[in-house]
Amino acid sequence: MTNTIPTPHLPRGFYATGVAAQIKKNGQPDVALIASDRDCAAAALFTTNKVKAAPVLYDQAVLASNNTTIRGVIINSGCANACTGEQGLTDCRETAESVAHSLALNQIMAGAIDATQVLVMSTGVIGVNLPMGKLKNGAQSASMELTTDGLEAAARAIMTTDTVQKIACAELRAEGQTYTIAGIAKGSGMIHPNMATMLSVVMTDAAIDAENLKAALTQAGNVSFNHISVDGDTSTNDTLLLLANGASGVSVDTPEKVSAFQSALTDVCISLAKQMARDGEGATKFITISITGAPDMRTAENVGRTIAKSPLVKTAFYGEDANWGRIIAAAGYSGEEVYPDRMALWFGPVMVFEHGMPTRYSEEEATRAIQMHDVEVRLDLGTGTTSTTIWTCDLSHDYVTINGKYRT
Amino acid sequence: MTNTIPTPHLPRGFYATGVAAQIKKNGQPDVALIASDRDCAAAALFTTNKVKAAPVLYDQAVLASNNTTIRGVIINSGCANACTGEQGLTDCRETAESVAHSLALNQIMAGAIDATQVLVMSTGVIGVNLPMGKLKNGAQSASMELTTDGLEAAARAIMTTDTVQKIACAELRAEGQTYTIAGIAKGSGMIHPNMATMLSVVMTDAAIDAENLKAALTQAGNVSFNHISVDGDTSTNDTLLLLANGASGVSVDTPEKVSAFQSALTDVCISLAKQMARDGEGATKFITISITGAPDMRTAENVGRTIAKSPLVKTAFYGEDANWGRIIAAAGYSGEEVYPDRMALWFGPVMVFEHGMPTRYSEEEATRAIQMHDVEVRLDLGTGTTSTTIWTCDLSHDYVTINGKYRT
Repeated sequence: MTNTIPTPHLPRGFYATGVAAQIKKNGQPDVALIASDRDCAAAALFTTNKVKAAPVLYDQAVLASNNTTIRGVIINSGCANACTGEQGLTDCRETAESVAHSLALNQIMAGAIDATQVLVMSTGVIGVNLPMGKLKNGAQSASMELTTDGLEAAARAIMTTDTVQKIACAELRAEGQTYTIAGIAKGSGMIHPNMATMLSVVMTDAAIDAENLKAALTQAGNVSFNHISVDGDTSTNDTLLLLANGASGVSVDTPEKVSAFQSALTDVCISLAKQMARDGEGATKFITISITGAPDMRTAENVGRTIAKSPLVKTAFYGEDANWGRIIAAAGYSGEEVYPDRMALWFGPVMVFEHGMPTRYSEEEATRAIQMHDVEVRLDLGTGTTSTTIWTCDLSHDYVTINGKYRT
Repeated sequence: MTNTIPTPHLPRGFYATGVAAQIKKNGQPDVALIASDRDCAAAALFTTNKVKAAPVLYDQAVLASNNTTIRGVIINSGCANACTGEQGLTDCRETAESVAHSLALNQIMAGAIDATQVLVMSTGVIGVNLPMGKLKNGAQSASMELTTDGLEAAARAIMTTDTVQKIACAELRAEGQTYTIAGIAKGSGMIHPNMATMLSVVMTDAAIDAENLKAALTQAGNVSFNHISVDGDTSTNDTLLLLANGASGVSVDTPEKVSAFQSALTDVCISLAKQMARDGEGATKFITISITGAPDMRTAENVGRTIAKSPLVKTAFYGEDANWGRIIAAAGYSGEEVYPDRMALWFGPVMVFEHGMPTRYSEEEATRAIQMHDVEVRLDLGTGTTSTTIWTCDLSHDYVTINGKYRT
């Protein structure tokens, strides 16, 4: 059993595509469709925001009654279908019906599909109703254009302020057979733990029951998408969906196989999450914050996230100013028990802070350590043995530009 | 008994000044000295950051043993004396000794002053030791230049990235006599509840015992400085100090007089806090966020602060984009129980959101409501009768510029 990093591709039995349905003003692709030629077990994680967009509420209801025979998911960008009241839910239902109908007309899909086998996701501006005519036309075209090499096209069609598509893939062998885990994601602003403005669909051709699927997804989501932060805003639409259709012939049904699946799924999710932080709105730097020496995981995560969220820390990185005091100050206001005398801080290999005060570091070396595109920061709390990693990006002039005029 | 808004002036018995001691590289005033010709009762609120700067630790120790005979406070800008270990505390002690010595040489001060009667405050870069020679020279000059009209000079000398000095003043009458409450403050970035990078000294010539003083300050601080947010960062140095020297002959010693004092003190603190939010780093707008219809104060404050902190909300105001969805989304991730269907949102007079979806508002009118310099936002939660107000500013390109290169 080995993981390889293959050329990204859809797992067997999955088809995808992306089309331009004119929902986005700029004419870019805005409708992605993913479908499986057989039933999928499904698991999903959703935003913790109390204001949940219609597609989130809709998918939660669908999955509560059917997490074993999902056949497809349609994702539109350009309109979030959030804060849209009853009409928003009606639009979700109508979209799913339309997709079920169109999909059934494609011979690949081999027969009838019910609306309750289709999930919907949306991302984009809040408070605007879905343009149903355009969306249904898009769904119809997409249903006819599904291909086994449509992974990248789907990844492109779900982008909003993203500058690059985000794809990750792993291949595993079990009992002489190969299976694949492949995922796409979007998200670059409004990114913060407990799900960000992110949508992600991960697919596998392994067979794995819904219960194990949910457990594996929860664990993978916690250490990947919940470990990135762009701006500390949590959106109304976040969804991470995992579909398993069993087309590879591999059943993930022993503790060893579950463990291998978990590990590869976590790798795929971490890869997608890091791609999101790297593509943070206006980002010029990708910042890895390692918290070590923590008494427990909650402390490590909260300190790391507080640092990752601090506008003062993020602007200092943008300005390539080795202003370590802001990191120590952020740790101090994280709400966790930290002790200045016990903390130690590194920029790359350069230790800049220890015993409650700056070391005799070279300002030049410290600056050089943060002048890279990929910056590594390590804060040791000196109060335990737990470590974790949070990924983030800097806060630039372009972030302000992008978000000052998002709707225009 | 009436409050008036007088020309700002020091209360009787107080003297102040500001001098340039070359601690700041740009030669601007950087040492403020405030002194009283008689003993003051004193109360203070300090940062909740676990990483407390040396002057915070030092003043906490001084006030723990003496909150009845304080005579002066020296404040330097340009160096925070934070993360400076034992040396930082030694420098505080030496500064207080030096000020006590210099003050005693000024005839106004009428006699010997002990180091335990002097408080110290610092603001500026973290992790750098105080330049003691410069500071002591500054203290010496300032001691000789104290005047009764030095309020503005002191306010100027404590500025860092502030663009204007911040002063507030109230006059009260009691029993045929007049007394004054006057305060200065600094702070424009790293501003968030539980004290920001802010220093403030409020003085009164009323006599009021230390216990009542602390109670009044705590109440005033909660609804003023703890109700503003610039960037969500809480600093290592925040201090709000209140001194009462009794020189007016008025004793605040009855419930009625305490109540009048409380009310005027709160007004002074709110005025200073609003001046800080208005002067937020790079701010182009002053934003008043009213939360109404909340079930309790904690909910109202948390929802208001989450909105005030959201980079997406703040950049939208900067871009004059009436993107109300971001405000609703921020309320949703505040961690408080909010219900989309019950919330209603106004930009100025324009209701933009109700019953879980946008009203039929005019985009033009909504945009006009946020094109002002002073923007009013009201969010009614629809779950109770408690209201509160949070003040903040927008997030601009200049914020990024200022904070990308703060140390250079």
